[in-house]
Amino acid sequence: MIEPKISDRNWQPHPDIGEAMYSFVRDLYPICRSITGNGVRETLRMVGRHIPLSIREVPTGTEVFDWTVPKEWNIRDAYIKDASGSRIVDFKNSNLHVVSYSLPVHQRISLIELKEHLVTLPEKPDWIPYRTSYYKENWGFCLRHKQYGELNEQEYEVCIDSTLEDGHLTFGEYLLEGEGPDEILISCHVCHPSLCNDNLSGIALSTMLAQHLSRCPRRYSYRFLFVPGTIGAITWLALNESNVKRIKHGLVVALVGDSGNFTYKKSRQGSADVDRAVLHVLKHSGDPYEVFEFSPYGYDERQYCSPGFNLPIGSLTRTPFGRYPEYHTSADDLELVQPGALADSLSKYLASLFVLEKNRVYANQNPKCEPQLGRRGLYREMGGFSDGKEIELAMLWVLNLSDGDHSLLDIADRAGLPFDLIEQAAGLLRKNDLLSEVSASQGADATKASIGIEGA
Amino acid sequence: MIEPKISDRNWQPHPDIGEAMYSFVRDLYPICRSITGNGVRETLRMVGRHIPLSIREVPTGTEVFDWTVPKEWNIRDAYIKDASGSRIVDFKNSNLHVVSYSLPVHQRISLIELKEHLVTLPEKPDWIPYRTSYYKENWGFCLRHKQYGELNEQEYEVCIDSTLEDGHLTFGEYLLEGEGPDEILISCHVCHPSLCNDNLSGIALSTMLAQHLSRCPRRYSYRFLFVPGTIGAITWLALNESNVKRIKHGLVVALVGDSGNFTYKKSRQGSADVDRAVLHVLKHSGDPYEVFEFSPYGYDERQYCSPGFNLPIGSLTRTPFGRYPEYHTSADDLELVQPGALADSLSKYLASLFVLEKNRVYANQNPKCEPQLGRRGLYREMGGFSDGKEIELAMLWVLNLSDGDHSLLDIADRAGLPFDLIEQAAGLLRKNDLLSEVSASQGADATKASIGIEGA
Amino acid sequence: MIEPKISDRNWQPHPDIGEAMYSFVRDLYPICRSITGNGVRETLRMVGRHIPLSIREVPTGTEVFDWTVPKEWNIRDAYIKDASGSRIVDFKNSNLHVVSYSLPVHQRISLIELKEHLVTLPEKPDWIPYRTSYYKENWGFCLRHKQYGELNEQEYEVCIDSTLEDGHLTFGEYLLEGEGPDEILISCHVCHPSLCNDNLSGIALSTMLAQHLSRCPRRYSYRFLFVPGTIGAITWLALNESNVKRIKHGLVVALVGDSGNFTYKKSRQGSADVDRAVLHVLKHSGDPYEVFEFSPYGYDERQYCSPGFNLPIGSLTRTPFGRYPEYHTSADDLELVQPGALADSLSKYLASLFVLEKNRVYANQNPKCEPQLGRRGLYREMGGFSDGKEIELAMLWVLNLSDGDHSLLDIADRAGLPFDLIEQAAGLLRKNDLLSEVSASQGADATKASIGIEGA
Repeated sequence: MIEPKISDRNWQPHPDIGEAMYSFVRDLYPICRSITGNGVRETLRMVGRHIPLSIREVPTGTEVFDWTVPKEWNIRDAYIKDASGSRIVDFKNSNLHVVSYSLPVHQRISLIELKEHLVTLPEKPDWIPYRTSYYKENWGFCLRHKQYGELNEQEYEVCIDSTLEDGHLTFGEYLLEGEGPDEILISCHVCHPSLCNDNLSGIALSTMLAQHLSRCPRRYSYRFLFVPGTIGAITWLALNESNVKRIKHGLVVALVGDSGNFTYKKSRQGSADVDRAVLHVLKHSGDPYEVFEFSPYGYDERQYCSPGFNLPIGSLTRTPFGRYPEYHTSADDLELVQPGALADSLSKYLASLFVLEKNRVYANQNPKCEPQLGRRGLYREMGGFSDGKEIELAMLWVLNLSDGDHSLLDIADRAGLPFDLIEQAAGLLRKNDLLSEVSASQGADATKASIGIEGA
Repeated sequence: MIEPKISDRNWQPHPDIGEAMYSFVRDLYPICRSITGNGVRETLRMVGRHIPLSIREVPTGTEVFDWTVPKEWNIRDAYIKDASGSRIVDFKNSNLHVVSYSLPVHQRISLIELKEHLVTLPEKPDWIPYRTSYYKENWGFCLRHKQYGELNEQEYEVCIDSTLEDGHLTFGEYLLEGEGPDEILISCHVCHPSLCNDNLSGIALSTMLAQHLSRCPRRYSYRFLFVPGTIGAITWLALNESNVKRIKHGLVVALVGDSGNFTYKKSRQGSADVDRAVLHVLKHSGDPYEVFEFSPYGYDERQYCSPGFNLPIGSLTRTPFGRYPEYHTSADDLELVQPGALADSLSKYLASLFVLEKNRVYANQNPKCEPQLGRRGLYREMGGFSDGKEIELAMLWVLNLSDGDHSLLDIADRAGLPFDLIEQAAGLLRKNDLLSEVSASQGADATKASIGIEGA
Repeated sequence: MIEPKISDRNWQPHPDIGEAMYSFVRDLYPICRSITGNGVRETLRMVGRHIPLSIREVPTGTEVFDWTVPKEWNIRDAYIKDASGSRIVDFKNSNLHVVSYSLPVHQRISLIELKEHLVTLPEKPDWIPYRTSYYKENWGFCLRHKQYGELNEQEYEVCIDSTLEDGHLTFGEYLLEGEGPDEILISCHVCHPSLCNDNLSGIALSTMLAQHLSRCPRRYSYRFLFVPGTIGAITWLALNESNVKRIKHGLVVALVGDSGNFTYKKSRQGSADVDRAVLHVLKHSGDPYEVFEFSPYGYDERQYCSPGFNLPIGSLTRTPFGRYPEYHTSADDLELVQPGALADSLSKYLASLFVLEKNRVYANQNPKCEPQLGRRGLYREMGGFSDGKEIELAMLWVLNLSDGDHSLLDIADRAGLPFDLIEQAAGLLRKNDLLSEVSASQGADATKASIGIEGA
């Protein structure tokens, strides 16, 4: 694992950050979350210990675009007892045992009736699957297929001590203000029960990222959302429709704690600055990674990138959803997620945000021929060597392409050099009055600058 | 051979269609066709038994752009007799024996004189070549090289009982009207003598395709041309110059009966809808195929794609011309062409036209976030699985990209899903009032929609 | 080595040209050049024996953009003597022994003091490195590392009999006028001492190219520059700023005498006509070659392609700088450079300039359908063959794409045919009044014509 090299210390994660993230995951693990209810509230309260989170409660029945905020679901206990009265399936052992949003039930039933309410994973007989039934009223238990095979003909007692009543949908939001009004959105889902990678890893990363960024000088404001999947994102968009235009970049955070390679799923726009920034960081990290074009399936980028919003929001994960066997099973546990992977993920997020923060369009103030770098102490004194020094090359690239049409990220990509080096070179040139920033009204804005070099 | 799966039964070819096509090829095989004359008339008469073909006779001497309709050529008999009076080369055995458009001749000549009028294929000594001399008055015989080697010094009698006189150029045309005035042109050449793949296979496919389409609901009108190569297409274009603008898509049909892989030669425009439709069908067929960029050599796409017309017309063949050894020889016979290949070709043509017919641009009526498909019965009730169902994915793709800028074909290509599935998904969404069609005046027309997704 | 086939004899190099170039390199080899001084003057005087070169002297202190013309440096002698008085390092043996622009010095020093002024190549112990110190006043010797290892503790006498005084920067220029005012710039650097490939090969090629072109009919004017690297190009640009707009294409000539493969470094514009012309020639040469995108490091393309000029100037070399071990060492000598390679390089330059000279945009005068080439004697009389003749194909390509938007080079690239064949085809069509030239004001100019074929 090669850390993205960022010379600016503000953007380097603390060495213990992986342990801190892991410890937070461990604390959040036992809570039974769903898309509404006290599990989400307790989770957000714990996030609030680290960052000043605002909690929003939206009443059942609120219309949010094509959807309606559902009833609130809470659960205290659930079990299946055999004829001898032993709890053979017990919610207290794993909250995955209950299909999320199960209606309350308490009755005695035969094996054949029971089986209509059981879900297992025959191909993974030791794991409990995770299932939900948010929008179809029903009840059910998930259990290990091995145990399912051992069930025999007898009378069972099933009990789900849940409530499904008018209440609220709860989400958390933290706006970390920067120098300007433009925002970067960081969104994670908080609706999954005891599943570590999906998505306690994302909650931990978002929380620690917010904490870290609060100590960095920031051009952008950062909006952190901790929302239930789908309905939470839809609710937030419905309540904040008029503010959405401030969002210039964004990332959906999920699956950042496993040991797999990184995966970047592009925004619907496909070559938004956030897409280019993340891919630049991944490319120069030296680590293997995969890139996917946008598709309308996955996490809340489905909503942020719906055609009526089409926000420049991508998703940086490690192994993507559905592609690791433990996904949505009891095996997505505290062993699957590890401190090193969490820290590495945070580091990649920070490095990507560093690119977005530092990306600028400059105009070379001496555009005709090269300026004489040597007399400014920016170029080595002896000539005749077969190769240039990296920082000299970086300065030459910045000078050559700073014609008002290329951002530093364009230049870094064109030069094949790390953004950080290009940014350092720009800093040296700026100090020597060889560059001036092009404001969006004067020249191209960074978003529009193309990578290719066109004719004069 | 995997049939393109089209759920709409109108667009599925009849199981016996291959036999019917082959039988038609067999009937057409003995006729001696050329660019003018009774062979073409007889051929068109036989096409007319299947579809209501209009026959057009254009007089010799008519000026058609840079060309002039030539004299009409007809032939009754031709032979070479040896000194003993035996017909050693006989037109009655194969009409390929006579160079097409040979002047009448009847004389006794020496071997050395005779050889100046003989054409053979030394590398294929058992095959008779096919040659023409339309625009240079001459006469000649084509024969097997094996026989040529056996000729000895003696006096020969050569006789070509042909006429080359003022007359007409004949072509056939069938306009199958659709709902609107926009046309799809289907053109094949009818000037080759006893050569099955080139182009009796094309005549049979065009005829049976017209017959099939006459039973389908059609947005487009279809114009079928049965024309002599080059001069026929030029004549048609000259006589129909003002109507050419109605042609929105087109295909030149040839070489569709051999057992080789499919080959698509793109229109000069290169990414016209017809190019994308055919390539989509070939890609999803599972069969191997080749794609060629447009080149100004080949069949009548040379004329349709000349720069003054630049029509969106490609050509879907099996093995392309000049790339199979039997091309333009007596071995292009009833064995080279087979019913299965003919049926498969028709099926690919139908599938391509299905895409053009069904391609539409829609606007998602609920563009902000996803609509709740579940409450409309369009989404499964239980959540938590690792993969989506294909039709659900197809609906999400259609919703996500139906922003007025993407046609269904754009969406199918972007999603990597078969057009038919995307079209079914659009149908479900349309029924639920989630899509409305964008008319060409309101939004992008399908032709202009690009595949890439641009920024907001 | 396959010679680019150019049918026009004017553009074929003389068979003895390689020997002539090599002989010129040999004559120039002993001279001690630097960025100023008598070595440059003597070099330009020798170039002037072949072509009518104008010499320009620019005084020390002249301000040229961000730079100032430096003092003039000259050297008569230099050595290191050991305690016994023997010249152990002698400028007379190799002018590489002295760091270029060394201040005068004459003193006795200890080994430890001496070593501060010595440069060697430990990894190539038999070679003398080439070093300069143009902009930092200093003195030094370069020597074989083998000899460096043999130095022992004693008193040494060092002497550099140089002058660094106000004087001039000298460069040479030759304008070979063509039919019109548009110019092609050919630039080489003349500041390196006894180094054959870098850049006596370039001086020889530029000189002989100018001589050759003076005998060709020319649409373009050719401006040949023989300038000291960096400061010379900057000086020329500063003095000729208003004339720069006449430069339509250009090449920086260097490293054209070694036996390596060709390398083309694109202009900053990236797809300028000169880029496309050179790449067309290299592709059709059959020789292996490499292509690099523009980068702001290298020879004087750094200045010509600075953003304030952004001239369409590339660089055609053989092995690029820094990529052969002999680069900037005494091993870049009369063995590294060979007549055959020099001649081959000249031939590639000529062929590229031929493309630029002959490239035109035509409009097909008969754009609707093909014209009847046969009646003009441009098409073979008998039909039915499986392949077309190359020149016929070339004519069909020219006709099909001569719609005012495609230059002959566009057509050659699109057809995959050599430019020379396309140009011959255009000549035949022109003679038959089938093409007329599109002037820049009437239609697209060649520079803007794109390779792709867009829809009607």
